[in-house]
Amino acid sequence: MSNRAVPLLADLIRRPSVTPIEEGVLDVLEAFLSPLGFVCTRLKFEGDGSYPVDNLYATRKGKEPGPHLLFAGHTDVVPPGDVTAWTHDPFSGEIVDGVMWGRGATDMKSGVAAFCGAVAQLAQTGALEKGTVSLAITNDEEADAVNGTKKLMEWAEAQGEKYDFAIVGEPSSFEVFGDSIKIGRRGSVSGKITVIGKQGHAAYPQRANNPMPVAAEIVRALYVPLDDGTEHFQPTNLEVTAIDTGNPASNVIPERTTLRFNVRFNDIWTGETLLAEIHRRLAAIELRGCHLEFEQLGPISRCFISPPEGHVSHLCDVMEDFNGVRPLLSTIGGTSDARFISLYCPVVECGLIGATMHQVDERVPVADVERLAEFYATYIASFLARKQA
Amino acid sequence: MSNRAVPLLADLIRRPSVTPIEEGVLDVLEAFLSPLGFVCTRLKFEGDGSYPVDNLYATRKGKEPGPHLLFAGHTDVVPPGDVTAWTHDPFSGEIVDGVMWGRGATDMKSGVAAFCGAVAQLAQTGALEKGTVSLAITNDEEADAVNGTKKLMEWAEAQGEKYDFAIVGEPSSFEVFGDSIKIGRRGSVSGKITVIGKQGHAAYPQRANNPMPVAAEIVRALYVPLDDGTEHFQPTNLEVTAIDTGNPASNVIPERTTLRFNVRFNDIWTGETLLAEIHRRLAAIELRGCHLEFEQLGPISRCFISPPEGHVSHLCDVMEDFNGVRPLLSTIGGTSDARFISLYCPVVECGLIGATMHQVDERVPVADVERLAEFYATYIASFLARKQA
Ligand SMILES: [Zn+2]
Ligand SMILES: [Zn+2]
Repeated sequence: MSNRAVPLLADLIRRPSVTPIEEGVLDVLEAFLSPLGFVCTRLKFEGDGSYPVDNLYATRKGKEPGPHLLFAGHTDVVPPGDVTAWTHDPFSGEIVDGVMWGRGATDMKSGVAAFCGAVAQLAQTGALEKGTVSLAITNDEEADAVNGTKKLMEWAEAQGEKYDFAIVGEPSSFEVFGDSIKIGRRGSVSGKITVIGKQGHAAYPQRANNPMPVAAEIVRALYVPLDDGTEHFQPTNLEVTAIDTGNPASNVIPERTTLRFNVRFNDIWTGETLLAEIHRRLAAIELRGCHLEFEQLGPISRCFISPPEGHVSHLCDVMEDFNGVRPLLSTIGGTSDARFISLYCPVVECGLIGATMHQVDERVPVADVERLAEFYATYIASFLARKQA
Repeated sequence: MSNRAVPLLADLIRRPSVTPIEEGVLDVLEAFLSPLGFVCTRLKFEGDGSYPVDNLYATRKGKEPGPHLLFAGHTDVVPPGDVTAWTHDPFSGEIVDGVMWGRGATDMKSGVAAFCGAVAQLAQTGALEKGTVSLAITNDEEADAVNGTKKLMEWAEAQGEKYDFAIVGEPSSFEVFGDSIKIGRRGSVSGKITVIGKQGHAAYPQRANNPMPVAAEIVRALYVPLDDGTEHFQPTNLEVTAIDTGNPASNVIPERTTLRFNVRFNDIWTGETLLAEIHRRLAAIELRGCHLEFEQLGPISRCFISPPEGHVSHLCDVMEDFNGVRPLLSTIGGTSDARFISLYCPVVECGLIGATMHQVDERVPVADVERLAEFYATYIASFLARKQA
């Protein structure tokens, strides 16, 4: 099946919308969706310590009352890096031997284009009349994500929007399309611990107090496993990402050293309970006259999990019918914008394979884009036709 | 007793001989010693990765054969730091209320001036005729010490010079003059250990190998005590002086981290046996797929100890007679040029209190300088009059 997803993807790739520069990419979407009956609202959010970001909210209410499906995605891309290292211009959308090249080809202009292609197809058949379909598209997922999906969702809630289910079009497949969807993500929290002793000359250790042995004990204490994982999640994992002293003089015992850590935590924890556990561990360490300073770095990303029953199970049914294989319910990987949506409705990430994302020569087979659009169309029709719970 | 030490000290302080700039300070000494019968040789050593340094060797052979005493010292000084923070100009040699101010007033232009004052006095009495007195004066003890005392001693040995005993005029007293002399110094060796794992994203720890837990184990292993000390030495002490990763990204597991350490070791060890022990400890650590790189930093300073009998005991006798208190035989503190001399003859450090050394407002009571000169004169006369062993 050929649909409008592929030419739309080329249009999107040709806009070099490196975070947070919009470069007309949302105009392209608005021009595509408005004729299909979508009410489009452009929203520029700013402040909260980050740069201004362009966002698009598009919603189409069918003639019959019915379920409300939200699609979420981002049009921003990471920088192309060394442009001369690319086989094809990263912003050309060139197709060679059935493969489309360009930054965003997998992450995730293809997901956005496929969903738009799907609704364009369904708009012809009347399938969209059985409920409501909305799109929440931001131009900042790759960087701060402060003025993007989070504020879009808050704005939509203030408008009275309520969703039954949401799909994020991020790459989610492992080896073949549809072999995996993500129903949750671990949370993330980072912090800095400073161990403060007393500076002195290495020849007179009695007059100094070296913070380094205490720092080593802290590393040991932090690496004691936090849990064994849960039904859908890997074990919570803590990494000490840096220790820094900045003392070049080999004859000087330093006054202080800092440790930075990052924790990826599962649904046993919240950021707050995890920080409390870290404080408990620090309190149990023999400080030998040193003292500690603690600082949380950056915001906490919450852990979320969507119930594997109901809409998730239905999506898996449709995928199994479509693909012959039931997708794995995964929760691995970093954080994603799905965490903001999970506050409002169950959400899954369901998209292509992300093999070349963020790399030089990012690219996607056009057949994969068509297949994703076809799946989205099949799924949307099935979702809207479901009886309300 | 008033002697020529104090005006000579003022002359020396007025030359701002910050390492390695000589600024005529050795000319002052040469002009002082030559009329007393000293044969003066100026030696400029250079190369071996360090800057050129001016040195002075002065020797006076008496009419009778007798023992050979070496005095060693340095005329270079550490920089004055913030000159406006000084109560008096650091290069004025000003005397206010019986105290002489200036950089080098304690470390150690006073020691050099006192010894010269002593030999000037003895030259009048004929006491110098009973043996040989030499001075080895360098203008680089405070910094690299590569082209200073070490090469002076090698040069002197090549000239056929042999010594029975040596005194270094560094500050050595604790609370009152003569309460302590140093008969040895610990050695020092520094190194850098790099722990190399595999970089990765903090969300995918399975694909990375964080070097940080191994670094913490290394710190623990290095801090296991090396010994309990010896008759004249404190326990060997190791300090990890820095751990540095240089990874600012909280979502990145770093590839590598470095540890720097410094060991101050006693006469149980040489630098080589100590490094071998550290390698043994590293080899016993579970590396979990990381590997280690090891680098020795800077040269090894050897540990030395002069036998407390013989000349050391005699010096203590003279001090006890002079002062009423027998000096403590100490080995504490950092490294000193005495380690170079210890290869050729027994050596002690015997000088004033070093309370203000390397500080703003370095200063010395003129009475202390006169007393040190008087002691040196008493001691030199007694030493030269001793029967040869
Ligand atoms: Zn993405
Ligand atoms: Zn000194």
